[in-house]
Amino acid sequence: MITFYHCVSARSFRPLWMLEELGLPYDLKMLPFPPRVLARSYLDINPLGTVPLMINGHTRMTESAAICQYLCALSAPTSLQVEPSEDDYGAYLNYLHFGEATLTFPQTLVLRYSRFEPEQRRLPTVAEDYGKWFLARLRTLEPVLAQQEHLCARRFTAADVSVGYALLLAQHLGFATRFTPGVKAYWERLQQREGYRRALQSQSVAASAQGVSTVPAPDSST
Amino acid sequence: MITFYHCVSARSFRPLWMLEELGLPYDLKMLPFPPRVLARSYLDINPLGTVPLMINGHTRMTESAAICQYLCALSAPTSLQVEPSEDDYGAYLNYLHFGEATLTFPQTLVLRYSRFEPEQRRLPTVAEDYGKWFLARLRTLEPVLAQQEHLCARRFTAADVSVGYALLLAQHLGFATRFTPGVKAYWERLQQREGYRRALQSQSVAASAQGVSTVPAPDSST
Repeated sequence: MITFYHCVSARSFRPLWMLEELGLPYDLKMLPFPPRVLARSYLDINPLGTVPLMINGHTRMTESAAICQYLCALSAPTSLQVEPSEDDYGAYLNYLHFGEATLTFPQTLVLRYSRFEPEQRRLPTVAEDYGKWFLARLRTLEPVLAQQEHLCARRFTAADVSVGYALLLAQHLGFATRFTPGVKAYWERLQQREGYRRALQSQSVAASAQGVSTVPAPDSST
Repeated sequence: MITFYHCVSARSFRPLWMLEELGLPYDLKMLPFPPRVLARSYLDINPLGTVPLMINGHTRMTESAAICQYLCALSAPTSLQVEPSEDDYGAYLNYLHFGEATLTFPQTLVLRYSRFEPEQRRLPTVAEDYGKWFLARLRTLEPVLAQQEHLCARRFTAADVSVGYALLLAQHLGFATRFTPGVKAYWERLQQREGYRRALQSQSVAASAQGVSTVPAPDSST
């Protein structure tokens, strides 16, 4: 049984969504956000203090996009991963990393310096620099998504989960109004997925049962 | 033949190091840093304006850690990747992503706001916030590296290349004096590798032949 530590709508939402898409059983442990401050004992389990933390036997993982790949391997064969023998294997790996390293990290800067830091430490310049950065990178997806339903391999894969989470975070931050048409339609399609909806429901039920606030906590990097 | 766009010691150094470790042939195209500013025509080839860009037939990739995985698949079987059937598969994937998403991104903030921005836009607070952030995350590797020679699977893998590049960047930024003993010894071991040395040599020879400055340009994210 997989044990999975999560904060509502944090980047740990990626593996939660994957668990639901793959139909894998899991024990969901909800944490208040940020756990480093509000759940100090969590540092004994994960010294990074971040979510996600996934434990499966001797395997412990903390990187959300890496866990998506790992869960695919656990469930292989699955259409959610692209095999090395497929034409789009490189594109698949690229989008998997792009969703986190290129599309999520700039948004964490916006969050930190426009919302999470105390008033006197906020830095609108940084929030603005990285808001622009994010939107510029996101625009590079428009030519792809204007022409195809998914990012690669002509089907829904873990790459869509990785990028999809960046869009969820962008929506929380108010960037959705600036999505280009192809990206906007893609994000609407992703939200229709049963797996996505089950993941939202799962975190909501667990948060309520475990007495954790359901106010979205989109990031745990700060 | 793989075509590979690179700036001296930027994060594109990861795949360059992998190419040398795997002994794959490649055509190295050096760019001045930052290419977005100094090589405007590069935007026609890569609208992101970032390095790396790797082209192999129809495959185009821009995420350095993803390219490391892709190159392993091209060369399979190779000891540089950890197979899903191995105990450390999860740890391998985790470190591969950790090297970029957790250890490199905070350093790009330090670079941007302490070195690359014009004087009047520099923000020492941000550089300090993310310098601390980086060192705190790096310390979590100490218990692992105090006990074992490599990050996982009891051998050198692409995960070491991913984290190793973060250490190269940290050295450029002056953080090496703050490495804990296990991390310091690990970084010294990595620099002894033939593949690492060949990659350094390769970028230096190509930069000189192509008339590109060899001043390290550790990051292209800004």
